[in-house]
Amino acid sequence: MSKYTYLKEEAYAGNMMLPRLNLVLFTWGNVSFADHRSGVFAIKPSGVAYSELEEEDMVIVDFNGNVIEGKLRPSSDTLTHAVLYKEWNDIHSVVHTHSTYATSWAQAQKDIPILGTTHADQTTFDIPCAPPMSDEMITGDYELQTGFQIINELIRRNISHQQLSMILLGNHGPFTWGKSVYDAVSNSAILENMAKMAYLTLQINAQSPLLKDSLIQKHFERKHGANSYYGQK
Amino acid sequence: MSKYTYLKEEAYAGNMMLPRLNLVLFTWGNVSFADHRSGVFAIKPSGVAYSELEEEDMVIVDFNGNVIEGKLRPSSDTLTHAVLYKEWNDIHSVVHTHSTYATSWAQAQKDIPILGTTHADQTTFDIPCAPPMSDEMITGDYELQTGFQIINELIRRNISHQQLSMILLGNHGPFTWGKSVYDAVSNSAILENMAKMAYLTLQINAQSPLLKDSLIQKHFERKHGANSYYGQK
Amino acid sequence: MSKYTYLKEEAYAGNMMLPRLNLVLFTWGNVSFADHRSGVFAIKPSGVAYSELEEEDMVIVDFNGNVIEGKLRPSSDTLTHAVLYKEWNDIHSVVHTHSTYATSWAQAQKDIPILGTTHADQTTFDIPCAPPMSDEMITGDYELQTGFQIINELIRRNISHQQLSMILLGNHGPFTWGKSVYDAVSNSAILENMAKMAYLTLQINAQSPLLKDSLIQKHFERKHGANSYYGQK
Amino acid sequence: MSKYTYLKEEAYAGNMMLPRLNLVLFTWGNVSFADHRSGVFAIKPSGVAYSELEEEDMVIVDFNGNVIEGKLRPSSDTLTHAVLYKEWNDIHSVVHTHSTYATSWAQAQKDIPILGTTHADQTTFDIPCAPPMSDEMITGDYELQTGFQIINELIRRNISHQQLSMILLGNHGPFTWGKSVYDAVSNSAILENMAKMAYLTLQINAQSPLLKDSLIQKHFERKHGANSYYGQK
Repeated sequence: MSKYTYLKEEAYAGNMMLPRLNLVLFTWGNVSFADHRSGVFAIKPSGVAYSELEEEDMVIVDFNGNVIEGKLRPSSDTLTHAVLYKEWNDIHSVVHTHSTYATSWAQAQKDIPILGTTHADQTTFDIPCAPPMSDEMITGDYELQTGFQIINELIRRNISHQQLSMILLGNHGPFTWGKSVYDAVSNSAILENMAKMAYLTLQINAQSPLLKDSLIQKHFERKHGANSYYGQK
Repeated sequence: MSKYTYLKEEAYAGNMMLPRLNLVLFTWGNVSFADHRSGVFAIKPSGVAYSELEEEDMVIVDFNGNVIEGKLRPSSDTLTHAVLYKEWNDIHSVVHTHSTYATSWAQAQKDIPILGTTHADQTTFDIPCAPPMSDEMITGDYELQTGFQIINELIRRNISHQQLSMILLGNHGPFTWGKSVYDAVSNSAILENMAKMAYLTLQINAQSPLLKDSLIQKHFERKHGANSYYGQK
Repeated sequence: MSKYTYLKEEAYAGNMMLPRLNLVLFTWGNVSFADHRSGVFAIKPSGVAYSELEEEDMVIVDFNGNVIEGKLRPSSDTLTHAVLYKEWNDIHSVVHTHSTYATSWAQAQKDIPILGTTHADQTTFDIPCAPPMSDEMITGDYELQTGFQIINELIRRNISHQQLSMILLGNHGPFTWGKSVYDAVSNSAILENMAKMAYLTLQINAQSPLLKDSLIQKHFERKHGANSYYGQK
Repeated sequence: MSKYTYLKEEAYAGNMMLPRLNLVLFTWGNVSFADHRSGVFAIKPSGVAYSELEEEDMVIVDFNGNVIEGKLRPSSDTLTHAVLYKEWNDIHSVVHTHSTYATSWAQAQKDIPILGTTHADQTTFDIPCAPPMSDEMITGDYELQTGFQIINELIRRNISHQQLSMILLGNHGPFTWGKSVYDAVSNSAILENMAKMAYLTLQINAQSPLLKDSLIQKHFERKHGANSYYGQK
């Protein structure tokens, strides 16, 4: 038995959540799960359909994108995951999908504005849409640069990856992360839901006001603050 | 066996209707069921996923929000339910969701206009969108004030809670109530349906006229009036 | 065994198609099946949920709306069905739903324009939206008048019920009919599909041209004309 | 056993994918699978519901549309498939549906613009909407001319059928093709997804810019280019 079995189990379970949550079509999307002490992560193999995916298909890769264990080629987006793990040593899972509404906001190159408490339950910030990369970055090491584009957009906006666990990449789609596979995949589903409601809200009223600060703080703090009282722990 | 078993059964059954009716994602939403003679209600525990929810997880709370029985922390929205039960002694169930279309109207801060007989089958009024609360109410006892915001909006509009069993809270989402769990949860599903059709109607024709009074009265009365002839009783 | 068993079987089967085709919520909608020689039809009982509906619940009613057999109260829309059977002696099934997109067009008080071959596969006409009835008709024998409103709208437009088996009633929703339960229910599902596509088409291009006459004739004739070559008969 | 059993198996499997992918209603849509050496293809029979379709119902037809084997009448669109196989000798499957979003773009008579990497993962071109045919073509051999309309639109735009495996026919709907049934049907599902996201993108931002060329090339090449690194082969 591989010493990476636990990583594969977690990554597999996360990948299989994506079709159940209606976030992917065919082979699209990928979930990884990382162990920072070993400096490796398990990720979905490239171009394999979820209906045929098995736990042993997960590929073990190091934080430079080198395959450590596995018979299949890892996701073409592997280097994006690798860069995020290398930079952010307290996240354990990264998820990428082309979910319909989040991707549409990314294609529209618009931030998702904070319009309700559903959004504030997750974050106090608009969901940033990072601009498409420069031609140099695209024709260079594209997937590696994708990771840096995400990291740099957060820096440019002065938001930490602990404050925000989801982003849109312009013209491309959403990326989310978290301390666990469940958190990172849930963030993808929640982002899709927020994206759909923001779309509908602005269709109903193009002048819908942003959520006011007291509500933003109240909802975020009751769920994530020092004195949070949401949930059981 | 707890003397509150019946309350837990009803509250549990109502909560489990929410995912089947596609009204909730993950742990969102909550249903309660009250016994006015005992002065208590059963409510969903906070932050527990529907897929893992069990009947014995329901928490028994009094109308001031004190836990009477149960191992888990009750829903963070418990005080909102408590206020409504305290004020309205003929309702036995309250439901809160973040269902997609109803929440989008709430985020748009718009009443849902009465545009068809589907709406009039439920109520003769536009579905009010109560304004977001003042900063004082939000930073104060937020969930308690949420209940008062709902009650006061009905008073302000001179509508009783018997005439209307659903409301939107601006920037937040829908709340519904009823004489039974089935009624209150059904109202949430019907509100979501009305919200979607009102959205589509105004997209098709931004000048869609409101339903005329004779149709409003006819449809409401044939289902809910003294001489109603809808249904079997 | 009742001599109307066959009618009840057919009506029951048709009613149970509605939830499978996502055309109804809870107790909404009704399907009937008529025998013109006996002068009766079987129809859904009023206000009974599809999940609890049984074949023996179907109510046998004559073409004046009198209950001939059955323990339950028939659909509140029974007289509308009765009027259509009385007037049109070659239809055997009538269906009424509040399906989302068709009802939204009805609420918008707009005909569904013929924008593509999917529409022409069913009919050569725009789907008419009959205006809401006069106050006198509404406060009078409402459901009976609903039937006449449908019949008169077709007359006013010089369209026969053989040329068109679906209509919208303004502010209310769709009614469809056919020679069999399967046809009538299918027409409701197809109308909902046409309504959704017409909505999307005009959102994509508000100036979308109507289908040209040669395409209308070709598609209608190849499916329904004297020299049709669609299907197996 | 028929020597065409393999063709029927493949065509049947492809047809049965359509309802699972939510691309068809009732009897609509058709998938064929061709053997260029034998000069025949298997295709869905006309007007048969997917729920009742069986493998032996598939009809074997030659490239002029003559039935070679089978008890049922072939799809009314058979000649369109035949023309495409005759002209393009390296495709083995053709699919036609009336899927909701793709058909709505066809009805709007608009090309689907390339707005994101999801689109570029499939093709570097906007998805063309061929204009509706001339009255002469429509009243002539309609289904045969439909095939030529598709072929000629690609020629007019100087795009080969290898560069693009999907097209919209104005006022009608989508046609897709591929080297295998799985590819051709997948293309229909992917086109529907692209059509929905393009619609939403332009609703969110009517001035959404087209994808820039470096991203188009990068995404297409990494999946389909000489040095592709997506997938397992």
